[in-house]
Amino acid sequence: MAKPPIQPRVLKGFRDILPETAIPRAEMLQSLVEVFQSFGFSPIETPALEYAEILLGKGSEETDKQMYRFADNGKRDVALRFDLTVPLARFAAMHIHEVGTPFRRYHVATVWRAEKPQRGRYREFAQCDFDIIGTTSAIADAEIITVMHRCFETLGVNCTIRFNHRALLSCALETIDASEQSVPVLRAIDKLEKAGEEAVTKELTSEAGLNEEQIARIFLFTQLSMNATSNSETISRLRDFFESAPAETLVKAEEALNQLELVLRVLSGSGIDDRSLNLDLSIARGLDYYTGIVFETMLDELPDIGSVCSGGRYDDLASLYTKQQLPGVGASVGLDRLLAGLEELGTLKAKQTTAEVLVAVLEEAHAHFGAEVSAKIRAAGIKVELYPQISKLSQQLKYADRKNIPLVVILGEQEFQSSTCTIKSMSSGEQDKDCSIEQTIALLNVRLGRPASLPDPDENGPDENELDE
Amino acid sequence: MAKPPIQPRVLKGFRDILPETAIPRAEMLQSLVEVFQSFGFSPIETPALEYAEILLGKGSEETDKQMYRFADNGKRDVALRFDLTVPLARFAAMHIHEVGTPFRRYHVATVWRAEKPQRGRYREFAQCDFDIIGTTSAIADAEIITVMHRCFETLGVNCTIRFNHRALLSCALETIDASEQSVPVLRAIDKLEKAGEEAVTKELTSEAGLNEEQIARIFLFTQLSMNATSNSETISRLRDFFESAPAETLVKAEEALNQLELVLRVLSGSGIDDRSLNLDLSIARGLDYYTGIVFETMLDELPDIGSVCSGGRYDDLASLYTKQQLPGVGASVGLDRLLAGLEELGTLKAKQTTAEVLVAVLEEAHAHFGAEVSAKIRAAGIKVELYPQISKLSQQLKYADRKNIPLVVILGEQEFQSSTCTIKSMSSGEQDKDCSIEQTIALLNVRLGRPASLPDPDENGPDENELDE
Repeated sequence: MAKPPIQPRVLKGFRDILPETAIPRAEMLQSLVEVFQSFGFSPIETPALEYAEILLGKGSEETDKQMYRFADNGKRDVALRFDLTVPLARFAAMHIHEVGTPFRRYHVATVWRAEKPQRGRYREFAQCDFDIIGTTSAIADAEIITVMHRCFETLGVNCTIRFNHRALLSCALETIDASEQSVPVLRAIDKLEKAGEEAVTKELTSEAGLNEEQIARIFLFTQLSMNATSNSETISRLRDFFESAPAETLVKAEEALNQLELVLRVLSGSGIDDRSLNLDLSIARGLDYYTGIVFETMLDELPDIGSVCSGGRYDDLASLYTKQQLPGVGASVGLDRLLAGLEELGTLKAKQTTAEVLVAVLEEAHAHFGAEVSAKIRAAGIKVELYPQISKLSQQLKYADRKNIPLVVILGEQEFQSSTCTIKSMSSGEQDKDCSIEQTIALLNVRLGRPASLPDPDENGPDENELDE
Repeated sequence: MAKPPIQPRVLKGFRDILPETAIPRAEMLQSLVEVFQSFGFSPIETPALEYAEILLGKGSEETDKQMYRFADNGKRDVALRFDLTVPLARFAAMHIHEVGTPFRRYHVATVWRAEKPQRGRYREFAQCDFDIIGTTSAIADAEIITVMHRCFETLGVNCTIRFNHRALLSCALETIDASEQSVPVLRAIDKLEKAGEEAVTKELTSEAGLNEEQIARIFLFTQLSMNATSNSETISRLRDFFESAPAETLVKAEEALNQLELVLRVLSGSGIDDRSLNLDLSIARGLDYYTGIVFETMLDELPDIGSVCSGGRYDDLASLYTKQQLPGVGASVGLDRLLAGLEELGTLKAKQTTAEVLVAVLEEAHAHFGAEVSAKIRAAGIKVELYPQISKLSQQLKYADRKNIPLVVILGEQEFQSSTCTIKSMSSGEQDKDCSIEQTIALLNVRLGRPASLPDPDENGPDENELDE
């Protein structure tokens, strides 16, 4: 036999997702979507391909370089999106008059970045974004954080949401006359936790040109949130810190602090424990478009993998595409990073199949009976797979075992003749014979740990069961 | 003010999907996924980008031309997938030893084709594929058709599934000595319904080189299924038609007919009405890889838009990538065409938002109370949006009206002081005042047409309600 002509392979940094991961991934995604919808967020869709000019220069030099950009068949300069925020900006510029404000949307979609592949990082990954645009209110900031918190609560993951306010950082820079250097300073500060003070000091000296005194004061500022026993303690320390600042700086800082206090009050109203929120003054978030609150989410048991949900407030989402000012706030769940994290924590249940019951038919002459039994079990809300060919029972049981299907309904000659089922529990090996279809459904429900559904009264006539007693 | 530097626009043949369509689209997708899972199909994911050699030459010359193909940053020759079948073939070649056979998977994903944009046809669209691979049994064919039928039943759409068997077509060609010309003949026959006999006669003459007698016999064959009162009548007519055929042809035809009879028997066992199945001998399905049963699905009320779910059986899915023979059967729902169809039929309910209740807070000092009420309503399973800023009540009601949110919970000074809610029904204008949070939840459920949930007994102590009576 000739060698197959084409080697089956995937591109570097890309991957197939097999059912054992794809099933819990789909479940996780569905949970997130249900949370978004429970807060009244609506889905939108945008194209994966955009005109390159729409996407270029919106993230950073790095995202520009990492873009999948090419000329399409019509010689248009096009690129695959690298995030969902830039497409939202373009979408808002085009459609905000149709959807109105405030507008809250979620968007679950794939994005592409040709970055160096690393553990748990791929060139193609899903993002789950949710934003409220058209309002400057801190109530919207709190609503986004509440959604974040609820997402992780729903997934059963312990996490801490760390937040900061960009205005506090720029006020701090004003107190040391370093406003002009804010970009390199924020970039350096963002590395504090990972790289440590020494490395950041070096960067602040070489890249931002700060002197020793300025650097000392910056560290004094970021340390205000360390060892504070509560967020209100940090806020009170910040009030002291800015007390001696110039009037203009003081006013700006006070405004930011009032916003944070409102956010914390609303979050407390939502029942979120103050201890799962952490005002951390060293957080800057790289992207330049944030102007207000910024936040990120660390898994308590696995902080190393970095933030699994980040975002912040921006003053003007779509200024490149429209004159209308569109302030907003939003966050993004890194689904695939989160998935990798949960896999590492062992909290992700791998599954080989979605089926709960396998129906095994042993002769072709009984295939229609198998279909009938399958349809009735399925109509009772149980996920059931009819084994799709005639094979020996041993082979069908082996299949159920390999796929971790817990229950097998066996239909042989005797079952066919008497219109009954035999139920085999794969874990115990126990068999129940001569079950009517109603008994079969009830027993399968019990074995699956669900309340046994009563037979549908419409089908058996009303109260038939009662009359029998 | 300066003109924004970049014109916001999408590429020709691409589009944004706004909430009013995206919400029912997401609901539809979720319904389909639930059907797939109820039959034990498991999700997989594959990359949107593949090596071009994996995708080229697998569909047709047309799909090759329509491919988005380019050199990536690493100079690799890559392309965006144009369907989900070729990626499945590549996936199976790489992973079939891990997942085992029979293997049933579904795959919901975006595909790209640079075809001429038409009404309801875009260059980017979603496919929902489901396949069973690793078996040649007609039971699997029936299982796929059962899933198709169940999908449309779930969506509340009347449809007819038309099917045929490739072997019957090739047997018919054998009886007129035209086996060599099967590709142009099948391509022509596939156009019978749309183009009519005259046009197809022309094509059969010019493209396939058939003479008058051959063409007459081909039409005699395709007409066997016309005006038949049942599928078994068509099968019986086919047995007559092939009676005089050469022995080898007769055996092959009989085998195909037996398979179709088994499929019909299993479908009848699943409770599917024979009248919603139509053995139609003029169906060939364009793609060359089908070898057995082929099928397509027409909306009864809107046949013009073409098939919304098509597929068939293939002998060897992955022969280009592996020596292992992988027979299978599958189908694909054209989600976006279906969506366009349902929109045209007016059966799609446009929705402006997922929210069922809007919580309106009137003063910043009460924002945390609004968050608390929202959280409690949400915990009862109601989708609730906290209006994300402080605005006049009239403005918040206008928002609810525009978004079609049926219920508004109003929280003013009085409600805040007494920890109660006022509920406004937007359609009637009716207001209920002084509702406790438990009463609020119960009333919202009633207004939403759901069973009013009882207060959680754990929160009020057991049997408290009974003791009150």
